[in-house]
Order: sequence, then C-alpha cells, then structure tokens
Amino acid sequence: MTTVRTRGLDGIFRPRSVAVVGASRREGSIGRQVVANLIAGGFQGPVYPVNSRAEVVLSIPAFSRVRRIPGPVDLAVIVVPPDAALKVAEECGRKGVKGLVVITAGFREIGGIGIEREERLRAIADRYGMRVIGPNCMGIVNTDPAYACNASFSATPPPIGSVAMVSQSGALGEAILADAAQAGIGVAMFASVGNRVDVTAADLVAYWGADDHVRVILLYLESVGEPQEFLQVAREVARRKPIIAVKSGRSDAGAQAASSHTGSIAGADVAADTLLQQCGVLRVDNFRDMFTLAQALLHQAPPRGRRMAVVTNAGGPGILATDALVSLGLEMAAIGPTTARRLRRVLPAEASVHNPIDLIASADAARYRAALRVVAQDPGIDGLVVLFVSPIMIDAAAVAQAIVDETRRLQKPVLACVMGRQRGDEAQAILQRAGIPVFRYPEDAAVTLRLMARRWRWLQRRPAKTPKYRVDKAAAARLLRAHRGSWLPGSVAEAVLQAYGVPFAPSRRVRDAGDAVVAAHKVGFPVVLKAEAADLLHKSEHRAVRTGLRTGDEVLAAAQELMARLRPEFPDVALQVQRHAEGHREVLVGMTRDARYGPLFAAGLGGVQVELLRDVVIRIGPLDGRDPQEMFAGLKGAALLGPFRGSPAADVGAACELLLRLQQLAADFPHIQEVEVNPFILAGRGGGSVAVDARLRVAP
Amino acid sequence: MTTVRTRGLDGIFRPRSVAVVGASRREGSIGRQVVANLIAGGFQGPVYPVNSRAEVVLSIPAFSRVRRIPGPVDLAVIVVPPDAALKVAEECGRKGVKGLVVITAGFREIGGIGIEREERLRAIADRYGMRVIGPNCMGIVNTDPAYACNASFSATPPPIGSVAMVSQSGALGEAILADAAQAGIGVAMFASVGNRVDVTAADLVAYWGADDHVRVILLYLESVGEPQEFLQVAREVARRKPIIAVKSGRSDAGAQAASSHTGSIAGADVAADTLLQQCGVLRVDNFRDMFTLAQALLHQAPPRGRRMAVVTNAGGPGILATDALVSLGLEMAAIGPTTARRLRRVLPAEASVHNPIDLIASADAARYRAALRVVAQDPGIDGLVVLFVSPIMIDAAAVAQAIVDETRRLQKPVLACVMGRQRGDEAQAILQRAGIPVFRYPEDAAVTLRLMARRWRWLQRRPAKTPKYRVDKAAAARLLRAHRGSWLPGSVAEAVLQAYGVPFAPSRRVRDAGDAVVAAHKVGFPVVLKAEAADLLHKSEHRAVRTGLRTGDEVLAAAQELMARLRPEFPDVALQVQRHAEGHREVLVGMTRDARYGPLFAAGLGGVQVELLRDVVIRIGPLDGRDPQEMFAGLKGAALLGPFRGSPAADVGAACELLLRLQQLAADFPHIQEVEVNPFILAGRGGGSVAVDARLRVAP
Repeated sequence: MTTVRTRGLDGIFRPRSVAVVGASRREGSIGRQVVANLIAGGFQGPVYPVNSRAEVVLSIPAFSRVRRIPGPVDLAVIVVPPDAALKVAEECGRKGVKGLVVITAGFREIGGIGIEREERLRAIADRYGMRVIGPNCMGIVNTDPAYACNASFSATPPPIGSVAMVSQSGALGEAILADAAQAGIGVAMFASVGNRVDVTAADLVAYWGADDHVRVILLYLESVGEPQEFLQVAREVARRKPIIAVKSGRSDAGAQAASSHTGSIAGADVAADTLLQQCGVLRVDNFRDMFTLAQALLHQAPPRGRRMAVVTNAGGPGILATDALVSLGLEMAAIGPTTARRLRRVLPAEASVHNPIDLIASADAARYRAALRVVAQDPGIDGLVVLFVSPIMIDAAAVAQAIVDETRRLQKPVLACVMGRQRGDEAQAILQRAGIPVFRYPEDAAVTLRLMARRWRWLQRRPAKTPKYRVDKAAAARLLRAHRGSWLPGSVAEAVLQAYGVPFAPSRRVRDAGDAVVAAHKVGFPVVLKAEAADLLHKSEHRAVRTGLRTGDEVLAAAQELMARLRPEFPDVALQVQRHAEGHREVLVGMTRDARYGPLFAAGLGGVQVELLRDVVIRIGPLDGRDPQEMFAGLKGAALLGPFRGSPAADVGAACELLLRLQQLAADFPHIQEVEVNPFILAGRGGGSVAVDARLRVAP
Repeated sequence: MTTVRTRGLDGIFRPRSVAVVGASRREGSIGRQVVANLIAGGFQGPVYPVNSRAEVVLSIPAFSRVRRIPGPVDLAVIVVPPDAALKVAEECGRKGVKGLVVITAGFREIGGIGIEREERLRAIADRYGMRVIGPNCMGIVNTDPAYACNASFSATPPPIGSVAMVSQSGALGEAILADAAQAGIGVAMFASVGNRVDVTAADLVAYWGADDHVRVILLYLESVGEPQEFLQVAREVARRKPIIAVKSGRSDAGAQAASSHTGSIAGADVAADTLLQQCGVLRVDNFRDMFTLAQALLHQAPPRGRRMAVVTNAGGPGILATDALVSLGLEMAAIGPTTARRLRRVLPAEASVHNPIDLIASADAARYRAALRVVAQDPGIDGLVVLFVSPIMIDAAAVAQAIVDETRRLQKPVLACVMGRQRGDEAQAILQRAGIPVFRYPEDAAVTLRLMARRWRWLQRRPAKTPKYRVDKAAAARLLRAHRGSWLPGSVAEAVLQAYGVPFAPSRRVRDAGDAVVAAHKVGFPVVLKAEAADLLHKSEHRAVRTGLRTGDEVLAAAQELMARLRPEFPDVALQVQRHAEGHREVLVGMTRDARYGPLFAAGLGGVQVELLRDVVIRIGPLDGRDPQEMFAGLKGAALLGPFRGSPAADVGAACELLLRLQQLAADFPHIQEVEVNPFILAGRGGGSVAVDARLRVAP
C-alpha cells in the first residue's frame, strides 16, 4: 500500500532547469515539440536538449549524454525508446535529477516485457529518490510565469488560469487542453500521468490542494489507483476547492476496454462512483459539463438549496429550463405573495409572475433590471437562471449589463442563457467578463446548477459518530475459529451474527419430520420450514422452503415431503423450523471486502421480487453514523420503506444499526470476506425487526 | 374535432404577392424587419407595404389600406395591434387574400378578451376560406429560390436546404433558425405557428410530407394540439422521412408553465411522449441533439441493429464512446475471428482488435484505411463510430480522407469524432463535406446513433391484427344500463368484465359471517375476505382485506371482526369471499378515456409494493395486436415477469389478451371512462391467470 506523497513534486512542476532527452530537430517529432513548447512557454531556466547526434536543437546547444550537461538538472523529460529510457533514468539518478517525465511508451500497457521495464523504472526512481510522471504520457505544464514550464508535446498552449487538471489518458490530455482553451478555462497546471509508476492522481490532488494558485481541480480518470488513499486526500481537499471528474469505464464494456488500455485494472465502476461521491468529487458525464461546471464554480457561489427561479423574456425557453431543472432533482421556487406583488408593480399585465417569471418579448434592460432587483431579494430562491432570447427591437448589451449589475453582489448562483441572434456577441461577452456563465441551451445551465447544489450539500454534510456496540466478540471468535472452509454453515453464520447483536426470528434445527413438529410448537406458529444442506445453495430452485405453516399437521406433511424429496440428493439434509416473521418490508444488508477498496457495504431492498430490480446502494467503509440512513434514503424504491396504504413506516433504524454492527464485525475479524443478512424483515417503528437468513464467508 | 388540412397552404408558403400590413419605416420595428426580410430573401413577386401614414417603406411604395392594393394579394402578413388586426383580416378576406400570417400578439395567450378575439379571427378565416398562421407568431420562411419568401421578423436568414421546421414558440423559432445556421443545417421551409388558430403542426407535417424538397421535418412542440390527427398524419409521413421533435413540458412544472404560456392546454406529457413514440417521431431532449440527428439522418443510413464498432487511435476516447453507447442501450459488436485475424494482419502488435478497435497513437491514414476496409466488411457490425485524436506527428486531413474513402459506399451509419488540436479545421471539414457527421465528444455521437437505431426499429415494426373476441355484449349492456352514478359496485364491474371474458378468481358475496363460512367452503380454501361498501374506497387503509384464511374457523373469526369493526361506519358493508389466487406475479391493466387523446391503455406491474414504484407503460389506442406485448416488455421491471429462482415465466400472454379485451369493451361502450383490473394474478404459461379486483367508471 503506497501512501500519498507530494514531496519532490516541485522538482517536476517548478524545476530550475530541464533536460529533454531525445530532443530532436525533426519537424513533427515529439522530441522537437517538447523543446519548442518549453521555449514558447517561456521557461525561465536553461533547457538542455540531449541528443547523441545533433549538436543544436531549435537554436539551443545539445548534449550527447545527460551526464555531459554542465549544470544541475531538476527535471528530465524522456522521449527515447523504452530500453534506452531505463538507461537514461539511471544516468539521471546519478546526476541528481529530481524529477522525470517519461513520455516514452512500451511499458506496462503492452504487458509482458513492458511490465518488467516498468518495475525496473520504479526501482531506479526509488533508489535515487526521483519522482516520476508517466511513463506513456504526454507531459506536464505549469503556466505560472515564475515557473513557466510546458514540458509536454501538446499542440495547444493552455491559457494561464487557476484550474489544475490531471489526465490518465495522454490523447485525451491533448483534447482536454484544446477544449479548455476553447471554453475559456485558464490552466494553472496540467499533468498527463500515463501508467502512474510513481506520481498518482491522489498525489496531484494533494499537491494542488495545498497550492493557493489552484482554485479548481479537474480529473480525467480511467480507474482509481489507490482508492483508500484517494478517498482520504480528496475528501480533505474537496472541502477547500471543488474537484470535478470525468471517470470513464462506466459500462461493463467500457471498464473492460479501460482495463486492457494503459494496463490499469478496471475497478468496478460502482465502487469508483461511490468513492467519488463519498469524497465530494463531482462526477460529470463529459468534458462539456466538466468545463462549464469549472467555470461556474470559479465565479459563482453554490446554491444553498434546491429552489431555483427562472427569469425569461420568452415562454418556450422558460419551459425548457423548468423541465431540465425539475428532471435533475432541483425545484422551481414558489414565488411568495410579497415577491409576486412587487413583480406585478414593475411588470406589464401580460407578464407572468409565476416561476418561470416571464417578462415577455418586449422586456428591455429596464424591465430586466426591475424584475431581477425584486427576485434577488427573495430569500425563498436559492439560485437564478436568467434567459434572454434577443428580439430585434431590444438592446441586448444593455440587458446583459442589467443582469450583471443587479446580481453582482448576490450570494446565490446566477447562470445565464442567451439564445438567438445575439449569441457569441456583446451580450454574452459582458456576462462572461462579469463571471456569469453563459449557456446556449437552458438544459446545460440546469446540469451545472444541479452539480453546484450537490457540492453545497456535500459541504454541509457533517459525519455522525459511529456507535460502538457491546458484542460478544469472544463467542464469535470461537465460532469462527472452529470453522474450516469458506462459507459458514447457516447455523454458525447465524450464531456469529447473534453474538454481534443481530436479532433473528426464533428457530430450531432438526433432523426429522417429527422433531420439526415439536420445534414448531416451541418457536410458535405460523412457521417457515427450510431445508439445509452443505451443497444446497439455491433453496428456491429446489423448492426447499415452505412458508405459512399454521398447524402441527401442516408442518409434519411439509417436513415429510421435503425430507423424502431432498434426502436422496442431499444426504446431510436438515430442517430449520423458523417462526414466521411479521412485516412485509424486507431489506438486505451486507459487506464484501474488496482487495483494493476494502470493505464495501450494501443496503438494498429485499424480497424475491424487488431484489430482481437490483436496487442496492453501496458505500465504501468506514461508514460513519450517518451513512446507513443516507444509503437507505438513496434507494430508488425508498418510498417502499415509508408509510403507505395504512401501514406505518418501516423501522429503517433497525436496518441502519444492523449495517453498523456488520461493520464492527468486519473490523474485528479481517478474514471475513463477505457477510449478508437477507432478508431482514422490518417491523414498524416499535421494534421487532428480525433477520431470517444470513450468509458469511471467510478467507480460507 | 378538426381534420388535417393542407389545402390552401401554398397561399402561405408559395404566394405570388405579399402584403405587409403594419409595414414600418422605424428601425428595429417588426413591421420594417418583415419587409426587409422579404426583400433580402429574394421574393420574386410584388411586396405591398400597408401603412396608413408612410408612403414608402424601404423604397417600396406603400398603401394606406389593403383594399387600395391594385393587384391580387396571396399572402398578408399582419403586424398591427390586435383589434386592428381583426379589421385587416376581414378586409383581406373581402379582397380574396388566400393566407394570413398574423404576427400580432394579444389573443388567446392573454386570456379573457384575447380568447374572444381569437374566436373572431377564426370565424373570419372560416368565412373567407383563408388559411391562417398564428396569431402571436414570428412568421414563415420558404427558401426555395422559385418561391423565396421570408415572411418573418427573424434576424437570421436561414441557409437553403432540405429540412423543414415548425416552432410553437416564436422566441425559440428565432433561436432555432440561428442554431440551425450555425450547425450547418439548410432549411427548406420554416413556420412559427403561434396560437394555431388554424394551421397546426399536423397540417404542416402533412404538407411537408408530400413535398419532395423536404427530407427531414423538425418540430418544437409545447403541446400536441389534436393528438389523434397528429398520430395519423405523423405515422404516415414518418415512414417516408424522419420527423424529429423537441417537446417541452416534460416535467409537471414545465407542463404548467407551458399551459399558462401561449394559451395551449398542456397535455399530460406521458401521453404526448407515448404519442410521439407511437407515430415514429424521434423525440430528443434538446436542440443540439435535434440538429445533429437531422444532420446524420440527411446523410447516413440508420443502423439495422444495435451492434456498434468503435475505431480509435486512443484508448481514452474509445472507453468514453463505449460507455456512452452501452449506457444508451446499444451494444459493442463482438469482433469475430475472421475480422480479428484480418485486423491483426494490418495492425501493429500493440493495437487492440477487440472493440473498441485501438489503432494506437501512431495510426496514420494508411492504417485507418486498412483497418476500416476490414471493419466495413464485417456483417456483424451495424454501425461505426470513428474516433481520431490528432497527434502532432500525423496528417489529420489524410486520415479524414481515408475515413471518407473507406466508408463511402457503406450501407451502415458512420459517425466521426475529431478531438484535440485539429478540431474545426481541415479534417473536420473533409468529413462534413462527405456527409459524415463530426462530433466533438463521443457521447454526442452515441446519442445520435441511438436515435437512428430507434428509427430503424420503428420502420421495421409491422402491426399485428387485433383479434375480435366473442363476448356477451348484450349482458354487459344490460348491466351498464341498470347502473346509476359513476363508479360501478365491485360486483357489477366484475360481471361486466366477465361478460367480456375476463377470468376472475371464484368468489361469493355475503352479508353475514356465517354465510361467509359457507361461501368459503364453496369457493375452496384458502380464501381471501374483503369488506365492500359504497363509501369504502381504500380497502387497505381500513384493513378491510384478510388473506390466507384456511379453515372455516379462521373465516368466521375474520368475518366477525370485519363486520363488527366496519358496520358502524359503513352500514351497507358486505363481504366478498374469494378463493386465493395462486401465483406471485401481479400486473395491472387498464384503460382511461382522455378528452383529447381518446382511450389510453396502461400495462404495469401490480402488487402493493411494486405498484409504489409506478412502473407503468401507457399507449394511445387503438392498440394493434403487437402493442400489448411491447407494453409489458417495456416495463422497467419486465424481468419480474420472466423466469426466476426456479419459477417459470409468467403468462404475460393472458395479460396481453386482457388488454385487448378491455379495448373491445371500451370501443363497444364509449361512455366507459375508466376500467382497471388490478391485480391480475399471472399463472405460468399453462393458463389459469385470474383477476382478483377491478374497477369501472362510466360517464354519469
């Protein structure tokens, strides 16, 4: 397990001198482009081209070997073929180079010999204490004039700004830089991290988190390398500055493609998605959304709630904005009587003071000004979308200025949408200069607002303490010790969980039909009869469960039928006689230990039918005391747990406690790989929820 | 009920002379802009400005009144205030004008007097047989040089092309024209239809459907005016040319905004969505998707299946494309051994011949050419997304040319995505000129492909005949005739449905507990006991249902408890004793008659829990024999009806038949407003599915 390290990264992003090993005179070569970019980027220190044949590269005297360079070298950019790259790395180490940017490909991503090469590169870096970006990357950029360093072969020099970006794909790095420039996003630093033999996204998040020049961090990820480290770092940095990510590999096919590409193991995307959410990283679907969100968060406050107002001069776009906001989980603010009255006073009779507030086509700057002044004061509005379709008879620039003036000091986000003729011209420029993001379509503004609202909610979230339950750890330890193999027998799993305070429906285990009747009278009617055997895994396929048995006679008949039918195939078959659990709301609760993510906790709806819908929320441990509630509330079918049709709400609290008890169990016994209680039958709020089935697997 | 009429529309879109009533000399006025647009648009006939004061408008002699115009007038564009507009319309009628474009606002959309004005306008148009576009619109455009007629106040003259567009919003009309121009979409005709006093979207779809110059029809709708007419026309036209729609009012709040705006009644969006799907209109979320889809359908064949291949020179974008395709319901084609072997022969070892096919960064035009030649021949691939991130060392234009050459005669769609430095330059231009849509992000290409695939599936669909069931219509008629009020008593509803062949679980109705025991023995155990009373609507809230009663004693106890508890509140309480229906898969099936849409049919998952998830598919009648299956297959939880955990698939066929029987019932008795069978308990394929509850409402 590596830890997050920011030490030494200055050697890469703020070097005083740079060697380019594999610098070239050839037009269109990477070795030439890197030198050209360093020069064009205004690097303040010396650039040393290293080339065994050329004496000069782009007017700069070249050296045949790194060791021939007279002065100290902070950063070496390596573009020679892979085997030569290892020799160069070794030479750099001996020369005291602080950081390497290895652009060369042919490492882990090609498998076989490439993996070996990568291990050797790692060993060299470790031996000399050098930090390494790459291999198989497109380089790094720092635009800060004091340290200007474009050590990449990007064709697009990024404009100076306060956004830092990391890309796990070299090719997309190029595209991201180009798109950022077009979107008007200024870049503070950029890194294409390639195979991440050393420097990871987590390292860079930590590095940029501590850098006041960086105000927003953008990530393009194909996998999350070290989930637990990333979680820790990002969670802390995201409190101070927004982190926005595009994570590819969302689909199974995409994840498979991601794992064959750049040699990274594709994490289950569900886990990655959970991880990003838990640490406050705003995951977006594409680069368009990434840039607009970055732009918005640079200049606008996130909304402190979901209640949005739309101000427009045309009905159609107002409806489109409303549709988009509502479909993304935001709300249309209800315009209170005071605001409505004030609006009525400044608007013509045909205007609508409902939300969307329609100033109608004749609205000029004065009307926008008057309306916005009223709306801005309404405390029931958390954010504003101002739409303007430019009619020929209205001065668009004046309207834009009115929007800017009236919303300047507002502690709420203001997003604008300019449609029609005036797009791209003065009105748009006036808004953008004032830090108001301008969109072409209202839908895009809504997407951005939704993510801004999500950031606010995450910032507001305060973790709750995890209770420490009194459990019988010694009893559980004894039970677990006595067991060989991976899956515990049902009775043992149940006993372990009972030692950790998990309530089960009363049951007895018997070996013949007569005993089943006795057991049924002891646990109380009605009962459920379940056949158990070591190899009997799918109970319902073998019709091994009989429910709703109300008399001794029914139990006897069912038990005899089960034994007669199953004993030939499963000689060890036994019967569990369990009291029927009241309640019709069922949930499942579980933990799976992932090799990379650690314990993953699951909360879902249970029951045969609903289970097929796979409505499960996953979170990465450790869970705090608030997580379980949020998990159940996050289910698509959460309403099924609330009150309905005369039944009171289910006791979700019992399920939350169960989740935390499983967490305690998993923490106490790290060799437990998987534990699931399913179904857990929820009673009403008064208590009495019980587990009726559970499974537990340990590392063999 | 109006009918679709295309008669007289030539008078509007192909006039030989145009009068502009309210033509103005004032800069920035609509009256001036319309005249200017007619001149700039190259109108071939005479333009007659009508203005009571000015003698000349934009160098054209003006007339004080329409009747003073010496020659005949085909089209009059009216921009005078609303009351004057009515007088002008009357005068136009007398003069023999064929069509009016009424730009003037102040009609239905302002309510009250505006509604009255609109009725008067309609009466005038009817009296003189004039067609009317508007009121409250921005005009119409025809770019065909032979009929060039820009009778609008749009600031953006559209480029000539083969797309026809209708907008229900004037303001968005302006934006749409501007965006179309920017997206490179050429326009054949355009109409902003405003309040649609006469000409509707359906009229225009029919008109353009018959016009060979028009190859794609685009709609911006806020509501579907006459659903049944639209359904009929669009279904027929969509077979010949693609129709693409943005329909706003998707959210409830948006629909509310839509209904207050332009005075149109907002249809339930679900019904509108269903309508568009049923008639093959491709509904998109926003204008961006509308234009890219239009562009693609103009030049590319729709894919004949879901299997897509991605060819890329960079891993990252390949993964993004894969994610997007899969998340939209398309599939990544499996690359067969033949294609893989052929690819291996032309690609370097590091390349991936899996899908996404990664030609890696060194791929030049020759490699793209070789790979595409192989892929193009694979019959297992239905469509292609070609990605190109332009590396500095590759000639991007040559790659673009290779893509064009190798896919030119392909009967499959080819979409391209050019990322990075080369965006917007030569490569993109080469692809676009060749009719290959170029996207900035792979996600956008996937959205377009998905919709193209949807069009193919719709075109392939062949309706199945609706069976005519033998029913006892006379018995149903007697039962319905005997009833007063709206909701039928449960027993009557059941009898009506039984007359139409709907199977019910056997049951008896009794008035006291003792009779319940006798009834239980007759229907057979186990039984369900339900209390019924005229005012007892929510049975579960009153705990009026007792299930799983297995003995006479249990029935007696339950019946006594129900009667004792409910009789004080519901003196007419009776008991239904029903045999418990076997089977755990429940569906609901129903029909609601909508004032505008006619009968709407619903198919959904039933059962208390699943019902809360509101998983219901709606279709507008008449249903054909294939509709019911498609409805059940379209449920989110359709898997719940398939085989699982040892249970065989449920007999969905029985539910499909039930839907068609309800349709027959609704057709036979037009005063039935609503009928629902819920739950309908599905047995396995062998038969035996039964209804256990039903409700039926008639018009009083």
